[in-house]
Amino acid sequence: MDISSVKVAPLDRKLGNEVRNYIDTLTKPPGSLGQLEKLAIHLAEIRSEKFPKVTPPGVIVFAADHGVTEEGVSAFPKEVTAQMVHNFLQNGAAINVFSKQIGALLAVVDIGVATDLNAANLIKKKVRYGTANFCKEDAMTRKEAEQALTVGMTEAEKLLQQGIKCLIVGEMGIGNTTVSSTILAALTGENVSSIVGIGTGIPLEKLKYKQSVIEKGLANRSFNPNDPLDVIAKVGGLEIAGMTGAMIAAARNRTPILLDGFICSVAALLAERIVPGCKDYMIAGHKSVEPGHQIVLNILEKKPLIDLDLRLGEGSGAAVAFPLLQSATVMINEMATFSSAQISK
Amino acid sequence: MDISSVKVAPLDRKLGNEVRNYIDTLTKPPGSLGQLEKLAIHLAEIRSEKFPKVTPPGVIVFAADHGVTEEGVSAFPKEVTAQMVHNFLQNGAAINVFSKQIGALLAVVDIGVATDLNAANLIKKKVRYGTANFCKEDAMTRKEAEQALTVGMTEAEKLLQQGIKCLIVGEMGIGNTTVSSTILAALTGENVSSIVGIGTGIPLEKLKYKQSVIEKGLANRSFNPNDPLDVIAKVGGLEIAGMTGAMIAAARNRTPILLDGFICSVAALLAERIVPGCKDYMIAGHKSVEPGHQIVLNILEKKPLIDLDLRLGEGSGAAVAFPLLQSATVMINEMATFSSAQISK
Repeated sequence: MDISSVKVAPLDRKLGNEVRNYIDTLTKPPGSLGQLEKLAIHLAEIRSEKFPKVTPPGVIVFAADHGVTEEGVSAFPKEVTAQMVHNFLQNGAAINVFSKQIGALLAVVDIGVATDLNAANLIKKKVRYGTANFCKEDAMTRKEAEQALTVGMTEAEKLLQQGIKCLIVGEMGIGNTTVSSTILAALTGENVSSIVGIGTGIPLEKLKYKQSVIEKGLANRSFNPNDPLDVIAKVGGLEIAGMTGAMIAAARNRTPILLDGFICSVAALLAERIVPGCKDYMIAGHKSVEPGHQIVLNILEKKPLIDLDLRLGEGSGAAVAFPLLQSATVMINEMATFSSAQISK
Repeated sequence: MDISSVKVAPLDRKLGNEVRNYIDTLTKPPGSLGQLEKLAIHLAEIRSEKFPKVTPPGVIVFAADHGVTEEGVSAFPKEVTAQMVHNFLQNGAAINVFSKQIGALLAVVDIGVATDLNAANLIKKKVRYGTANFCKEDAMTRKEAEQALTVGMTEAEKLLQQGIKCLIVGEMGIGNTTVSSTILAALTGENVSSIVGIGTGIPLEKLKYKQSVIEKGLANRSFNPNDPLDVIAKVGGLEIAGMTGAMIAAARNRTPILLDGFICSVAALLAERIVPGCKDYMIAGHKSVEPGHQIVLNILEKKPLIDLDLRLGEGSGAAVAFPLLQSATVMINEMATFSSAQISK
């Protein structure tokens, strides 16, 4: 699959207008379901269907390791990536219980964990054994970055063929808030200090150190900020590339993408930079505690559905927000109209 | 049932601390599920159960008419109350489709609609044919107010006996944002202009008129602001009294109450004033567009879970927010711990 040739269709704005008018015929004061009405219109525009559905959703979690963890930027040791993949496969993690709650198809992809993993329910698509430390060398080759994008696209296409109507992408990769912050700074020129946050929970006094590691990476790698693939190759990470590819595939297939937090949104920005128009297919699930998240959301022009101080990743915040999309669709699919219910307007 | 003798137990704070510690053993960075963690602790304290559940929820919609509609305060004619009850019974309204989405038991109670209604699935507990116009006379007698509270308690008890684990109360009553605004002003002395909103959607130029109607009612009725039953009797309304009674019953039975918008929250304030301690059992579902809602939420010391510009009522905003409570409970009930999943901390 050649990513540079991928095209994303514009939203069906004409149908959106039709749906807007239809919603005003439903048995409720006009506009009284606020953002849910806007969501229903947006979903119709995405799917090009007057009565869109979002169930079942699909969740793909991409897991990979990051060489930059050797700089000591995370609250957790690197081996937790592999341990958490094991936890996903045993249904013990947050994304498992939330996926089950929303009836999602869940796929777990090893796209670059640093150790060998084996399990019947693991999708083994390792591009390499983790990235290199971007403070010292390029995270991966351009070819590997392309390969990771393609893995993402392929895995999303597989779920789409299984009938998912909404895509959530999640990640596991110790060190990946550091990598995402670096990507965001690289793509936007935004000040690192305004982006960087505590990630999984480093002590506040370590924030400045994390910031210095990111600045070191930015200084030591020579990347072209207008070439998103180059940024991925130089900074990483494999799971972020996978998420990016998966979102491109969903947008190409007119499938809504429900964004998780900071890392996911950085991947979303990469998708939009690689294939312009992708962002029209995205809905922001929640507002993360990570300060960089608001910066990306502003660039993507998205207002998150919920704001519950979440900062877990894995796709968990999106999964928690998903029932709101479902509410928007049951509204338009199942409510009576004033005339069908014989109610005075 | 004598309401003045009802007692509500304090929250189980000791268990709350235990649950707080347990949540930190789950396979996620400590605190990373933000408000969901606080919600799980609160639910445990309410139920006095380490592993609380909220499904199935129950929704009771109380319907009644308001004499004050003859002053022309609503965007809809009074007959819409009865028409919407019919719509509820035909599963066509917003609360129907959201109740179905969350698997709720739904009860529709005629507690004071101005016309006769008959349907097999309608709970007929009419206290009177609508209230009187509070600009001209007392909305109802104290005895009728007590009777409406008792209907609410009884209907909630019935659903509790059927096994609901969370209560949502909704309402239908054209004119009831006017009545709720009047109650709030009466109970708190708050300025009417800071409370009053567009309700179901009156034009902005009619806001001042609505405000003057409320002020006329406050001036013409002599009520004791420290006697919530007196305020209900003088101002109304029957469905608001029903909601109040239902919430008292839920609190007495250690069952979480998920608040809807403005009208529901005014009923919640009445419940707290009648039986202190009730508010500990309440969770704010969403933030309504009605300006008075934030005022009540501040008094109840509640922070709403979602803020999606909803202003429909019927219990719909609470039903839409309900899956977040479910997420909090699946987190604590189903996630693995670091030790059970053998993950490095």
